[in-house]
Amino acid sequence: MPHITVDPALPGITGLLNYRLDTALPIRQLTQILLRGESTLTEGERELIAAVVSNGNQCRFCTAAHTAAADLLLGEKESAEKAKHDPENAPVSEKMKYLLEIARRVQADARNVSVELVTDAKNAGATEMEIHDTVLIAALFCLYNKYVDGLATVTPTDPAVYERLAVILKNHGYMPSPHRYATLNANSD
Amino acid sequence: MPHITVDPALPGITGLLNYRLDTALPIRQLTQILLRGESTLTEGERELIAAVVSNGNQCRFCTAAHTAAADLLLGEKESAEKAKHDPENAPVSEKMKYLLEIARRVQADARNVSVELVTDAKNAGATEMEIHDTVLIAALFCLYNKYVDGLATVTPTDPAVYERLAVILKNHGYMPSPHRYATLNANSD
Repeated sequence: MPHITVDPALPGITGLLNYRLDTALPIRQLTQILLRGESTLTEGERELIAAVVSNGNQCRFCTAAHTAAADLLLGEKESAEKAKHDPENAPVSEKMKYLLEIARRVQADARNVSVELVTDAKNAGATEMEIHDTVLIAALFCLYNKYVDGLATVTPTDPAVYERLAVILKNHGYMPSPHRYATLNANSD
Repeated sequence: MPHITVDPALPGITGLLNYRLDTALPIRQLTQILLRGESTLTEGERELIAAVVSNGNQCRFCTAAHTAAADLLLGEKESAEKAKHDPENAPVSEKMKYLLEIARRVQADARNVSVELVTDAKNAGATEMEIHDTVLIAALFCLYNKYVDGLATVTPTDPAVYERLAVILKNHGYMPSPHRYATLNANSD
């Protein structure tokens, strides 16, 4: 049961974004810019960063949600599965392997993002903006993971909930009309 | 040396907020609402949460900046010093002791914010909104700490830099005109 009184129809982060709307707005805006704004990283690649960081923090709600979003955007499930559990063999570019390793280090202890790792990422084609955005996306998902788990929000066990959430995130991004989240437990988007 | 090219006159977070202005805006807005907006927690108490979380993440820039801000707002240095290193004996209210412990757990592993701890906080007078805000402030400073250290920004060693930054944060909050940060290395605010 959540530590504060949130709408029981809104699981995970969705109830928190509805609990305090004035803080929710800049959180949503930041996420929309970073994950759906103009970038040389694809939306699927950015969702992979979110999934890997959420997995590192063992935040079940966010891991399931952003794995489902990455799977839907990439059109396959292998990249997210391996990025989380077998990163050496993930079917992503060399550049993404380094960026995902940067994200993992930001999650675990950001002081361990080394000059060597950043140099490897740059040599594999990563721009400074891509490195910046990888670090900030990883930091943002630490915020989300800690917000969601620190308040003990509800984590649905039905995978269909996350598949419906992924459809919302793909089609409407991070600034959907609030009523869309109310459909998560229903059978329609 | 930072992993990306930031203005060398802008240390720590200030260079990052100047690096990508579109992402900086919602980060600043969120911080302004949480740390300077209407609240039953004082500005000093909210800066204590920021200092304790930054200390837990061993982010030297943020710890020094928010310790200085808390000291300035509270008019004494003992609360921040003890909240970081000897929390049992910090001269803060019982309610704040529990809220600071919630913040520490959010920083270390948010899944460890227990029902018992939240109940203790509520019994000591904490409202649900105060618990919400404590968790979100702690999560936000994890974002800041990881952003600052993940990109290896410069940490000034001169305490006067943080005292000048604290004056900016006290007088102008988290939405100051960007030029104010350029005065950090100078001798005037």
